[in-house]
Amino acid sequence: MLGALACGHKINCMNSQETAKSLTEMSTSSHAALAVSLRGVNELLPQDEWIKKLQASEKTGTPLRIKLGLDPTAPDLHLGHTVVLNKMRQLQDLGHTVIFLIGDFTSTIGDPSGRNSTRPPLTREQIEANAQTYFNQATLVLDKTKTEVRYNSEWCDPLGARGMIQLAAKYTVARMMERDDFDKRYKAGQSISVHEFLYPLMQGYDSVALKADLELGGTDQKFNLLMGRHLQVEYDQEPQCILTMPLLEGLDGVDKMSKSKNNYIGITEEPNTMFAKVMSISDVLMWKWYTLLSFKSEADIAALKAEVDAGRNPRDAKVMLAKEITARFHSSTAADTAEQDFNNRAKGGIPDQIDEVTHALDGGAPVGISTLLKALSLAASNGEANRLIDGGGVRVDSAVVTDKGTKLGAGTYVVQVGKRKFIRATLS
Amino acid sequence: MLGALACGHKINCMNSQETAKSLTEMSTSSHAALAVSLRGVNELLPQDEWIKKLQASEKTGTPLRIKLGLDPTAPDLHLGHTVVLNKMRQLQDLGHTVIFLIGDFTSTIGDPSGRNSTRPPLTREQIEANAQTYFNQATLVLDKTKTEVRYNSEWCDPLGARGMIQLAAKYTVARMMERDDFDKRYKAGQSISVHEFLYPLMQGYDSVALKADLELGGTDQKFNLLMGRHLQVEYDQEPQCILTMPLLEGLDGVDKMSKSKNNYIGITEEPNTMFAKVMSISDVLMWKWYTLLSFKSEADIAALKAEVDAGRNPRDAKVMLAKEITARFHSSTAADTAEQDFNNRAKGGIPDQIDEVTHALDGGAPVGISTLLKALSLAASNGEANRLIDGGGVRVDSAVVTDKGTKLGAGTYVVQVGKRKFIRATLS
Repeated sequence: MLGALACGHKINCMNSQETAKSLTEMSTSSHAALAVSLRGVNELLPQDEWIKKLQASEKTGTPLRIKLGLDPTAPDLHLGHTVVLNKMRQLQDLGHTVIFLIGDFTSTIGDPSGRNSTRPPLTREQIEANAQTYFNQATLVLDKTKTEVRYNSEWCDPLGARGMIQLAAKYTVARMMERDDFDKRYKAGQSISVHEFLYPLMQGYDSVALKADLELGGTDQKFNLLMGRHLQVEYDQEPQCILTMPLLEGLDGVDKMSKSKNNYIGITEEPNTMFAKVMSISDVLMWKWYTLLSFKSEADIAALKAEVDAGRNPRDAKVMLAKEITARFHSSTAADTAEQDFNNRAKGGIPDQIDEVTHALDGGAPVGISTLLKALSLAASNGEANRLIDGGGVRVDSAVVTDKGTKLGAGTYVVQVGKRKFIRATLS
Repeated sequence: MLGALACGHKINCMNSQETAKSLTEMSTSSHAALAVSLRGVNELLPQDEWIKKLQASEKTGTPLRIKLGLDPTAPDLHLGHTVVLNKMRQLQDLGHTVIFLIGDFTSTIGDPSGRNSTRPPLTREQIEANAQTYFNQATLVLDKTKTEVRYNSEWCDPLGARGMIQLAAKYTVARMMERDDFDKRYKAGQSISVHEFLYPLMQGYDSVALKADLELGGTDQKFNLLMGRHLQVEYDQEPQCILTMPLLEGLDGVDKMSKSKNNYIGITEEPNTMFAKVMSISDVLMWKWYTLLSFKSEADIAALKAEVDAGRNPRDAKVMLAKEITARFHSSTAADTAEQDFNNRAKGGIPDQIDEVTHALDGGAPVGISTLLKALSLAASNGEANRLIDGGGVRVDSAVVTDKGTKLGAGTYVVQVGKRKFIRATLS
């Protein structure tokens, strides 16, 4: 599903003659804007209409309106969620306006897409808390000054029961059943509630209310994005184009990034953890991530890859990616520190900043290493502490502890478990 | 579909042991009420629940709430429409309350039941005019004092867009597709709009809002009636029972009564026409009409039929039916007059009351019969007048006119065309 580095897009709904004609008429900046639009996409269609919109925007100086609808139910974003946000940021950098649309109304329906069970409706309080969390996280990627935040209850509530019926009259059951997950569930005898048919209609109506020029989504959203086009035509508007982004592969390079697979990097994770996790991915996956997660130009990425192909250590490229991503969600300083920390630990060294803990010795008597590990919460039990020692995973002041009978008296020690857990313990 | 005279009902959703037990516990008046409920029905179900409702009503003295939902789109009722109204009148006479529900809200959707094309929504003005016409006609059958008139916009508008979605969540697409006409249309590749799925849900919600105990409809309404049961359970109410009546066969005894087949008797037709039309039906059809259209008791009808079987002229029974129906929509006097009129015309006689017209003779000269027929609007042209004369269909003072050259001078004549058109013309 991920495209090749420089041209991972498909040309749809447009024959090559039309494309060629449109491209000939394009200015240099529109050409560049098209290239940015297409980078890493799964599909952008109809491409001829998008080219016309870019040209009209350039000519009139009117920013295009780019819609991203969000069901405010997942307040903890990971890098997988940022693939679409990155594309929006790139379009913002071209001067266009992003509409960050909180589906507060539609989340009273639940999002049935791709799922067999219906998600329960959220309360107003949950929606608002989730939306705020979502926005706070998303604006780590998006340019706040070019982001318009909207809630779809603004136009959905005034629709009323009659408006809902009139909206539902604009689409047929047969076409609704063409949606992949509906088709599969219907054929499998799995329940689809009638209200699930209203959800894509509401999402499409959002595009009408917003007069959207482009709507972004994951590949699983294609049906819903096309609904926006259909309804805009029904409401006598110029239809939006649609842009789908591929799903990001997780740390394992196999499955799509998700919390349930535990192959993700949360965008609020600590800088050191974030950096180290990026460093853990394969070289092959690294280049896919460059396309979808980096803001380097495609030319710069191609040059870097050429260097690696010519013999440069791919680790250098991975460090650059890890620093870029860490800096985005924290700061350049945090990224630099994370790099040092990662290098220290790679050498078995002790990181610069570690937690300090004071431990009172019982009557001043030295404490057994297993008891100490448990007291410092580095092991859940004496038994686990013993197993860690047996595995060679415990160090005191960088020296591996091999004797479970080791006792420590008063003093300050760096106690380490595994590669990443460090505590500077002062026993007294 | 029409049941036999005395027991044209089916027992459903109840095994015979349960029925027997319920019947044993019933009072004499509940027994009688059950018999009235079942007369001529296609289905009444679940019958055990209906018996319990009748018993509870008798015990507490609380009338049952009987719902008839009407899509206000057909303001000219014929006898076929009164089959259901008659049943409601019988239930009113047992003391129960009829709710005459104007589907003003749902008629903004249109009624897709049994039709392949979607009916366009009505305007507010059309709905109100139709509803008033409907009510004026229906109360020729219903007891106004036991009829509660309601408009479903009362509870449907306040539902809002959210309420509509919540309602739609209470039914599945698969079960919706079980409705006969949806199934057929879907399989035939005929378009079903998504809003058509909302219509039966709204109809069912009406039963919730009204706390209906029984809903009546034609046999084609069974799916929608059952929706009321389903939704009442969803909203923690005792579910309604449902009662379907067979469709009435028209004058031809072949097709269902309908305007498009021109085999109907409109309830606002002139008494003489109404009487004569009833007299035109076959003896077989007459007994079916007795079951569905007469308010005579089943015992009285059975006795009458026994007399006819024993040799009494079936014409006597037909006259009684014609008089009963004519009296219902006009008056006993009008029914008596219609009978005399019918008898006169059957004998070729001249009716008592006919239109009087004065015709000025051109310069006092006698007028030709064809010209006169045209002047009296009894023929559209001289050509048609001549053809009527040739066919032996024109009489003057009861004598058939055979000579197209006949001229009439000053005087008063009864001019007759065919069996029913009479004018008393004074020429001067």
